Amino acid sequence: MTVHLVGAGPGSADLMTLRAARLLGQADVVVYDRLVGDDVLSMAAPWAELIDVGKQPGAPVNAQGVIHDLLVDRGRRFGCVVRLKGGDPFVFGRGGEEAIALAAAGVSVEEVPGITSAIAAPAAAGIPITMRGVASGVSVVTAHQDADGSRQLDWDALACSGTTLVILMGASRAPIIADRLIAAGMPSQTPAAVIQSATNDDQNVRRCQLADLGSLDIVNPATIVVGDVAALDVFMNPADLIHAAGLNEAAARAVPNRGVFR
Amino acid sequence: MTVHLVGAGPGSADLMTLRAARLLGQADVVVYDRLVGDDVLSMAAPWAELIDVGKQPGAPVNAQGVIHDLLVDRGRRFGCVVRLKGGDPFVFGRGGEEAIALAAAGVSVEEVPGITSAIAAPAAAGIPITMRGVASGVSVVTAHQDADGSRQLDWDALACSGTTLVILMGASRAPIIADRLIAAGMPSQTPAAVIQSATNDDQNVRRCQLADLGSLDIVNPATIVVGDVAALDVFMNPADLIHAAGLNEAAARAVPNRGVFR
Repeated sequence: MTVHLVGAGPGSADLMTLRAARLLGQADVVVYDRLVGDDVLSMAAPWAELIDVGKQPGAPVNAQGVIHDLLVDRGRRFGCVVRLKGGDPFVFGRGGEEAIALAAAGVSVEEVPGITSAIAAPAAAGIPITMRGVASGVSVVTAHQDADGSRQLDWDALACSGTTLVILMGASRAPIIADRLIAAGMPSQTPAAVIQSATNDDQNVRRCQLADLGSLDIVNPATIVVGDVAALDVFMNPADLIHAAGLNEAAARAVPNRGVFR
Repeated sequence: MTVHLVGAGPGSADLMTLRAARLLGQADVVVYDRLVGDDVLSMAAPWAELIDVGKQPGAPVNAQGVIHDLLVDRGRRFGCVVRLKGGDPFVFGRGGEEAIALAAAGVSVEEVPGITSAIAAPAAAGIPITMRGVASGVSVVTAHQDADGSRQLDWDALACSGTTLVILMGASRAPIIADRLIAAGMPSQTPAAVIQSATNDDQNVRRCQLADLGSLDIVNPATIVVGDVAALDVFMNPADLIHAAGLNEAAARAVPNRGVFR
């Protein structure tokens, strides 16, 4: 009689937690999103009811109420329901809203955190989102603003905060965001990176300067990183990089003894 | 011949990833930190060499170079070395520095992300760090500033960014940070929460207003959350909360249809 809001992680099935895998294997019902891959779903028990509630890009948002009703219904009728979400349920996953709807209906609800792509996607590209001497913090935002406008982000402040900026679901708004950050005083040559299909076989990483971010062809789900760490590839041997194309030697010298910046 | 920088997650052993557990079980050498618990370590193979490099609070920082040398040495001599860190290796875990040291020495290095307590500790307290209509982003910072001062955080900007603020390792500096945020214009009645021993049996959650944060007795490792979401407990049935002590009805009414704020 419990609905578990479970994070499936950034893509690769073995980046789920042990707890998530155990619950998925014993769930009577699995309600899943568009971003959850087949490898993850194949870990569900053969008898489980699998329900796809994935929203297509651009589809109306009011389907969220339908999902709430579905979760309450299944939560009342079954012993173990898993609500499976890409990444982490509480990082732009609407997990908070679903938990509130379940709790208000008297249905027991628990949450199992997942690895968010906000951290894992840069990491898979060799980018540590925080690093001593380079970035003392990270701000993770979504490019989709709230419709009511009451809690809009202050991009001026974000540009000046001194944190690495990670933007999720920012594909279509990348040009606007880049212009906005530069207008707020962020140097146009600030390193940026775009990671798509992170941790999956078709992972794709592109690096550029902030000024050029808007000219890239970006398709969601994408993770955009803006900040000095975006130029790093910590897995790369500097000796190899010397021979690689595109090495920015000036940037490499800018942070001595801290590895190679691409 | 690979050193794996592995995140052990926020505390509870079953919040490790499947990949982390697999690598831990087959590692020849496990180099671990102070924040890694016995339940996690017990998953290492019986033949593994276990090396504790945990820094005690206040101990000198330059031990990091000793850790680099150790990892390079073991990485050259063994097939599978796991460098196990609490949380995520790239969220204030010095994983970036260790990866660079290994790559520069020609040792193959990979990273396995872990659940960071910056997200999981609030979640375990019923606090979603982002929530539609309440918080469109989150900033995660550490209270320990860089020694060289060149990349200090801009607390004025952080106070105005519109993101939830999560502060790691902020115990001793909580009073200074609270004063700093209020001076930057953040309302003194902004909700705050302090979570200690998150996801472990002795988990402890305290909620207050920003103005009172400095008067709490906080011991690291602690996770501090500042922002409207800090007042939420999404797992709580509103009907139960009506009878609970300390319900802030004014706050509950402030965000209608979005659940109960404590």
